[in-house]
Amino acid sequence: MIAICEVGPRDGLQNEKDVLPPATRAELVNRLAAAGLPRVEAASFVSAERVPQMAGAEEVVEGIERRDGTLYAGLALNEKGYDRLRAAGLDEVRFAVAATESFSMRNANASVEEAVGAATRVLARAREDGVRSTATISVAFGCPFEGPVEPANVVELAEQLAAADEIVLADTIGVATPKQVRALVERIEKPVGAHLHNTRNTGFANAYAALEGGATILDSSIGGLGGCPFAPRATGNIATEDLVYMLEGDGVGTGVDLEGLIAISEWLESLLGRPLEGQVYRAGIFPAA
Amino acid sequence: MIAICEVGPRDGLQNEKDVLPPATRAELVNRLAAAGLPRVEAASFVSAERVPQMAGAEEVVEGIERRDGTLYAGLALNEKGYDRLRAAGLDEVRFAVAATESFSMRNANASVEEAVGAATRVLARAREDGVRSTATISVAFGCPFEGPVEPANVVELAEQLAAADEIVLADTIGVATPKQVRALVERIEKPVGAHLHNTRNTGFANAYAALEGGATILDSSIGGLGGCPFAPRATGNIATEDLVYMLEGDGVGTGVDLEGLIAISEWLESLLGRPLEGQVYRAGIFPAA
Repeated sequence: MIAICEVGPRDGLQNEKDVLPPATRAELVNRLAAAGLPRVEAASFVSAERVPQMAGAEEVVEGIERRDGTLYAGLALNEKGYDRLRAAGLDEVRFAVAATESFSMRNANASVEEAVGAATRVLARAREDGVRSTATISVAFGCPFEGPVEPANVVELAEQLAAADEIVLADTIGVATPKQVRALVERIEKPVGAHLHNTRNTGFANAYAALEGGATILDSSIGGLGGCPFAPRATGNIATEDLVYMLEGDGVGTGVDLEGLIAISEWLESLLGRPLEGQVYRAGIFPAA
Repeated sequence: MIAICEVGPRDGLQNEKDVLPPATRAELVNRLAAAGLPRVEAASFVSAERVPQMAGAEEVVEGIERRDGTLYAGLALNEKGYDRLRAAGLDEVRFAVAATESFSMRNANASVEEAVGAATRVLARAREDGVRSTATISVAFGCPFEGPVEPANVVELAEQLAAADEIVLADTIGVATPKQVRALVERIEKPVGAHLHNTRNTGFANAYAALEGGATILDSSIGGLGGCPFAPRATGNIATEDLVYMLEGDGVGTGVDLEGLIAISEWLESLLGRPLEGQVYRAGIFPAA
């Protein structure tokens, strides 16, 4: 059994042109949880000025109808963000630290060392508060400013973040290939996850390879929502329904209702007024029910 | 080293709405060969009435500027098609036999037994003529009319087609998942290849798994040209440039010039007036040259 963490309401919508109101984002979270997704990244507690798509995180959380068995997570990049997340009452904090200095400065306005320091403080507080924690290592395979990333640096960073309940390796700009993903996952202490973008069509092969390497958590985004700010014509996260199709076909249990996911992508397509990147919702399940 | 067989000029264009004239298709073949692709499926010797996109196969072949090291292939579905292919002087005949009766009747107007009989005659003649041969087993993983296909049936069919120089397992409608592909590839006598569609976003994971299973030939289509007649909103073959990106990133040599492929997809995009499904040509090579 693999734990899929649905990141559409956060990483997906954050990279969409359209800004959806908090009530709609809460409805999306509720629909995703109802489809059986074990984890949903519901909101981002960052500056609304910097990321207008994520404004009103508290309102999103208020709109959630809590479902037994679903873990509701949020993103924080500093203690202030964690305070808001904690006040809102989410179950899990996801804290991102970049693997390169350039990306860390541009994304979080902090050096990697400063980001690790902030993560350490937040992870300690989360442990005290009984809040689950995930440390995501961004640009773990490649950086738009610095190019390929040395795997040893990522391994070292993961060790510095070992206070987290789990480490997630993020291919933020979608440049990794499967053997690279498998090799890095194998070097990280478990439990480990992978956050994959399909920017260059390697995302699903990378997910397969991550499982071979021992990953037990996979991030994905309903419909493949989202894009890549560093490649404007490119696509975003791997699509949740396509991931579920692949895993179930391979006999890997997900506990997720694929038809329920497809209905959500159809709803999102009408909401956003454009076809999404997900393919199973367009091509149909095989064999048909 | 993996042998990529480029099927864009045949399987790709055959499923496009636009009909490109033979001279343009010959130019496409020449550009693909110049990018270093070891094999190009250049033409289809089927009825122009049934498949107008493939009309003028002889003209296409006449327009080819032969390049050392490139193997030029064509599709035939019967002896008449083989006669034309042989007269045109191609290096390889690719003969397709469906794994199910329903698909065989609809696609070739013949039972599977009749198709195997025709294949056997063509394969014998090809051997005599010194023409290379590939037997492709269509709908080897799933059929739009009959659903999932029993792997044992495909194994048996492959044995009946053992006179071919190689067997290619085709996921014609893009329903397979990686473990299924790997398991079936492992059961077929080598050399074996895989022909994969990305209809449900499993195509590249399937390619990765096919290599794990021992495949040494992979079909792909420049830009992901083509579609799926059984799922009108769905995409077609795996894109050659994305496959090369993935393989080279994994350290699997292809001998193909990725920048050359990207230039061809850009040319095709302007020719067809729409973005293609390939993603690397939109997102860019990483790391940038």
